Formats: sequence, structure tokens, C-alpha cells
Amino acid sequence: MTQGYCVATYRLHDEKADFHKKAAGIAVGLTVGSWTELPEAQKAHMRKHLGQVVSVDVHEPGAGEPPENRYADISIAYPDVNFSRDIPALLVTVFGKLSMDGRIKLIDLHFSESFLAGFPGPKFGAAGVRGLLGVHDRPLLMSIFKSVIGHDLDNLREQFYKQALGGVDLIKDDEILFENPLTPIGKRVEACMAAAKQAEAETGQKLLYAANLTGPTSKLRVRALEAIGAGANALLFNVLAYGFDTLAELAADPDINVPLMAHPALAGAYYPSPHYGIAANVLLGKLMRLAGADLVLFPSPYGSVVMPREENMAIREALLTESAADYAHGAAADAALSLRRSFPVPSAGIHPGLVPLILRDFGGEVVVNAGGGIHGHPMGTAAGGQAFRQAIDAALAGRTLQEAAAEAGHEALKAAIELWGVKS
Amino acid sequence: MTQGYCVATYRLHDEKADFHKKAAGIAVGLTVGSWTELPEAQKAHMRKHLGQVVSVDVHEPGAGEPPENRYADISIAYPDVNFSRDIPALLVTVFGKLSMDGRIKLIDLHFSESFLAGFPGPKFGAAGVRGLLGVHDRPLLMSIFKSVIGHDLDNLREQFYKQALGGVDLIKDDEILFENPLTPIGKRVEACMAAAKQAEAETGQKLLYAANLTGPTSKLRVRALEAIGAGANALLFNVLAYGFDTLAELAADPDINVPLMAHPALAGAYYPSPHYGIAANVLLGKLMRLAGADLVLFPSPYGSVVMPREENMAIREALLTESAADYAHGAAADAALSLRRSFPVPSAGIHPGLVPLILRDFGGEVVVNAGGGIHGHPMGTAAGGQAFRQAIDAALAGRTLQEAAAEAGHEALKAAIELWGVKS
Repeated sequence: MTQGYCVATYRLHDEKADFHKKAAGIAVGLTVGSWTELPEAQKAHMRKHLGQVVSVDVHEPGAGEPPENRYADISIAYPDVNFSRDIPALLVTVFGKLSMDGRIKLIDLHFSESFLAGFPGPKFGAAGVRGLLGVHDRPLLMSIFKSVIGHDLDNLREQFYKQALGGVDLIKDDEILFENPLTPIGKRVEACMAAAKQAEAETGQKLLYAANLTGPTSKLRVRALEAIGAGANALLFNVLAYGFDTLAELAADPDINVPLMAHPALAGAYYPSPHYGIAANVLLGKLMRLAGADLVLFPSPYGSVVMPREENMAIREALLTESAADYAHGAAADAALSLRRSFPVPSAGIHPGLVPLILRDFGGEVVVNAGGGIHGHPMGTAAGGQAFRQAIDAALAGRTLQEAAAEAGHEALKAAIELWGVKS
Repeated sequence: MTQGYCVATYRLHDEKADFHKKAAGIAVGLTVGSWTELPEAQKAHMRKHLGQVVSVDVHEPGAGEPPENRYADISIAYPDVNFSRDIPALLVTVFGKLSMDGRIKLIDLHFSESFLAGFPGPKFGAAGVRGLLGVHDRPLLMSIFKSVIGHDLDNLREQFYKQALGGVDLIKDDEILFENPLTPIGKRVEACMAAAKQAEAETGQKLLYAANLTGPTSKLRVRALEAIGAGANALLFNVLAYGFDTLAELAADPDINVPLMAHPALAGAYYPSPHYGIAANVLLGKLMRLAGADLVLFPSPYGSVVMPREENMAIREALLTESAADYAHGAAADAALSLRRSFPVPSAGIHPGLVPLILRDFGGEVVVNAGGGIHGHPMGTAAGGQAFRQAIDAALAGRTLQEAAAEAGHEALKAAIELWGVKS
């Protein structure tokens, strides 16, 4: 049997370190602990536990660059015989103590095929979500409640209904809506799913409602089943507040038979620094998909909560790639990745005038997700959804939004681009 | 009943932002969503859900300082009626979306008295750990296995025995030792506790062994009970890989009746950046104690894995303070904090010559924790522990290590300071 390795890639900033020596120190220090001083007989036995330096790419600052720009990208292979088949074990191995060792950022991960095989990944994936909705020929549209805290069931049902009338495919809870006496999850799901049915009778359109799954870790499963029992057909989850393993266990649970939508709450504590933390493509890309998120929200490059476009594209690639080589160390270039694809959901600052840009950046496999861009529509919430749907149809047909907006029946789009403009 | 608020303090870096406006935006945006446009009747009802700006302290860069040094420390009070009594809900509320909103770092937290009351905190605390060991008059001494991966039970038992002979009070697993066929947790605990008994027969000294609790989140409780059943009298836990709530549930579980030792693995992904993340005193101080860690490891300011001394002191203060005002928003200055104290365990780079400095920095309520500083002793592992104990005794007696080392019976200390020197 070929030895399996998980490979972590780090960016280390240091003005004068010997990066090759540093890499060798990591490979030994985070696996067998010591090597050169081991007796030969013991080396033979310990070799299968020893980490390996895969590559060290040093970036020396060019003329005019400050010395603190010196860095190296270092890849280390960790024998997966050293750790159990769960994400906490992997992360503690590759970035536990090491995260505290100077200016170091975890920028990529490749898993062993054996490690990967321990994860069923998304239960539905992008294609499964499309299947549930019966929508296969266009990006999906999602909306978010405007305000939820302090509102009662009638108010939420009303908000839900108006959003649903606009033709959105998904509606998600606010991630800061927790268990509360006014709108506990079971009652909330009943009220909102009733509104969904009512809207479907008018629009003929199916809809997924992602109710926010919260509370003590050991009670999440029961609460998820309660929500599903009440009719929930999707769940929102603040993954980083609970750890990836909790998502992985929910996703692998056959009784939790609805799509899981990962919220990026707390992600900004990890990814934005160039020197520390975990890069967005790992945190919100590979690990979310591995752990089984069917849809993944992340800050769009368009709004006030910004993430640079190249980081967005790297997340998208991690969520949608079908090449095993992107995830598995040593996989053949043409081998297919076993994990279902996760729907990318770039979020924040989205209005209908951005739709052509979103489709250019993300292609067709994307969820267009808006809050203020729907509720803030001058003709109301339902028109807000309609404007997005009209913008999506126009963009798919290769037409400009201005052209489409000029036509009869496109008043919603017209009003939207008058207010927010069109960006390209 | 007085309204309860949890207060989060952030440091925001921005060259030109209106920080007062920003603060007001956070207080509204992360609670009721919108305020000024609400009808008066609704305001009356919603006021109890509205966040409050507590303070905005702007630091304008002085002459010669670069403009990017401009920052403000902003404190926002969040009504705890808005979230459930668990750490994920609190963190998602105060630093979920906000973590992704520019250069912002969470630098402090104060809880409402009602929120605090939901947490029993450490089951033993520093005093309880001392009680288990019967040691009340000196800092404790802990040692770490040298290498564990790839070693069998006989090897671990032998390593354990040598460490125990040196007079250490606690021995901890390596945090990267996971379930494995050679040394599964039940068998490991049996072997090591047998070695502990054997050593105790010779030294007369009690010892706690913190076995590493790992695996799938939903199985942690059962595995902890298995370890305890096999004789484990403490557990090590990689808290940040699982989330604070998992620690809180383990700590609140009456069947898990042994001290919990929190390892800081992954902490470096959060605290080192001046611009992003969660400060060490919150991450490794307040939240660990609130969640119930009896002992907390963190990078010492002395070794190669460095943390600035003032950050270390802030963690120490968070783990040991007995003033309710340090934890509870609005508590009286002389009120006592209900949470037991957590033992601070500054780690990495510790040798006997540092003991006087550690005691000066940390006082008597500290665990002196060494790996290489024990195993690397020229006279062997047992002498390594003895050298530390001799250094601790000397420092407590107000003597220099050099003085003590010159006496008969202190050969272990003498050899240690010849190798590593004395730092003051």
C-alpha cells in the first residue's frame, strides 16, 4: 500500500531565515520529533511517521522592495498514519503549534486519498440543490431577511412571503437569529414554510428556507431534526463557531437530509492578514466542501465587506473544481474528485446592476445573494426579487441590463438600475 | 430586572474613518438592523434589542507616526436578550460578520451577569488542581513527552516513569498524539498510570496525567469517560479545533470529573496580527476560563515560540483575576468573580535557569512547563525534573540559582545552569 500524506502549504515571512532549514525542522518537529540523532534501527521503523519537505519556494525582495517582503512558500507532507481521519486532528497536526511560530500563514491543503475517502462531503452539492428546486438553467437567487431580532412570527412570515413572491429560490435566516421566545426554530420554520407554500401557489416556484441551526453543540442534531420535522428544507450553520468537525458530523448524518448552508461568521478572524491565519480558499473553500457544506457564503468582492477578487476566485475554484488533483496529494491530473460541488454564494453589497459582473466572475454555478439589494428596492421587496430575476435572464441572454430594462414588464429592473446603476 | 449586556471591545485601524459613526453603525447593524427609520411605536418595543455604543477612544497618529497607525478602541454593548447563553451565539453576534469588515480585532469581552451565570467555569480550578496533588506552597511543575508518534506502550511507560521520577506534578500528552493502534487512549492511560504509581512508591509524590482527548466531536464524551475509566486523572484538549462550546459542555458534565487542560493549538491563526483576529487575553484567557479550562497553556515570552510579555501578563490576569468587574459588565468593583481560577501554563523554551523570571512574572500561581528543558538535561530526564524542583525551591527561598547549585545534592541544578545559564 502506498503511504498516504496530507500536504500543507505555508507562506512564511522572515527577513533572514534559512527557509530550507526551517522546512526541514517543521517536517521533523511536527511528526517524529527528532530524526538525525535516532539510531539507524529506529529510523527504519520511524520512517513511515516522518514528515517530508515537498518544496521550498523563496521569494527574495526585488530592488526597491522592503526586506520584510521576503517570504517562502513551503509545502510539507505529513504521513496520515500520524493522525485520525478528522479535521481537528489534521489542523492540529499541520497548524497547531506551528500557527504560533512567527509570521506564518496556512495557504493551501492537499489531502491524502485515504483521508479524503473518510469524508462523504456535501450530501446534495450544487447539482442536488438544483434538483430540489427544479432549476437547472440559471444561477440561483437568494434573499436574506431584513431584520429579525425582536420581530414576531407574523412579521417573519410576512417578510418571508414578500421575498418569496419576488421569485427567489432560497431564503436564509440572519446568522444572528438564535433560539428566542418570539420565534423558536420549530415555529419559525412552520410559519415560513406556510408562507412559502402560499407564494408557490401564486408563482409556481419552489423555495428552500435555510433556518439557522444554533445552540449547544451536543443538541444541534436534535434541533436540526426538530427543524426538519417542522418542514425545514435547508439549514444555515455558523461553522467556524463550532468547528469543521461539527459540520462534518451533521453532513454525514443520514437523518439530516436537507442541504447545509455554511455561514462565514468569524472567518475574518483568520484570513485577511498576509502574515497570519488561514487563507480564505482553505477556510471557506476546501475545508467547507470537505466537511460537507452544500452552499458556502463568503464576502463578495463587490460590497462594503470586501475580499479581493483573486481570493474570491480561489474560493470558487475550491468549491467547484472537479479535478482530484486539486484536493488529493498525488492524484492523477485527469482523475475526478469524489466530493460533490458546493454552491458558491458571494455575499454583501449585491444589487441587480452587479449581476452581469457576478456571472462573468463566477459563471453559471453561483447563488446571487442579496439583502439590501432586494428589500431596498423602491417598489418593494417582491419587486426587488423580480429585478434580480430580470437581470439574470437578461445577462444569460447576452443582453445589457439597460436594454432589458427598457422593455415593458421590466419596470422592477428599470427602477433598480436607476437607483443602483450597472457595474461592469 | 436590569437589562443585561455583553460588551465587546474592538480595535479598528483606519486612516480616515469617522469612528463614532462606525461605532453607531455596529451597535444598530448587529442588533436590530435599522433604527432611525423605525416608527416611534416600534422603537419602544425594539429598544431592548438595540445595541449601545459604550465608548470610542480615538488614537490619532502623532508627529512622525505613519497615518496607518490611526485607530480607535470601540466598545459596544449587545443586549443579551438577543442571543442564547452559549459562546458560539456570543461570538457570532459580536464578531461574526464584523470580523470581515476591514481592519478590526476583537480585543476584549465583558459578559452580562446573566450570561456569566450560565457557565459553571472550571470544575477544579487552580485550587482544585492543587488539592488533587496536595501541593499548596509552590508553583507546579509539568513535563511533556519527548516524542510519542510511532512509539509503543512500553516506550511511553518508560518515558513517563523517568519524568515522574524527577518530581514533576503533571505530565501531558503531546497534542499531536491521536487515536492510533500502538497507543490508544485507554491502554495509554493504563500504562502511564501504572508508571505513575510505581514512581509514587519511590517519590511519595502524586501526579496528574493529561491524556489527549481527540476524535469526532460527538464521541468526545464517551472517549473521555473511557479514559477516566482507565484511570486518567486529567485530560488535554485542543479547544480551538473544536470550538469553545465543546469545552464548555465537557466542563459542565458531572461525569467528566477530572481537570481539563486547554492546549492553544491553532491560536496563532487568531491573535498575532495587530489588525485582525482575537486578542490572546480573550482567546486564551477569558474564553478558556469561561468555558471551564482548569489549566491553560499558551506560548511563553521566553522561548522560540514567542508572545510579547504584556500579552502573557494579560492572559495571566484573565485566568487569575478574582474581581467580577474584569468579567461582568457593570459589576461592582469589589464584587467577587464566580468563576474558579484557571492555572496559567506558559510554555515553550523553558529551562531551569528561567524559573526566577517565571516566578517574578507570574507569581506563585503558575505551572512551570518544560519539554526539552527536562529531557535535554545532561544527566537524563529524571535529573531534568529534579533541576526544576531545585530551582523552584531556591527561588521561593529567595536564593540565587547559582548559590543553590553550589550545594551538595544540587548536582542536577548545577548541570542545568551550566548548560542553559540563568536568565534574569
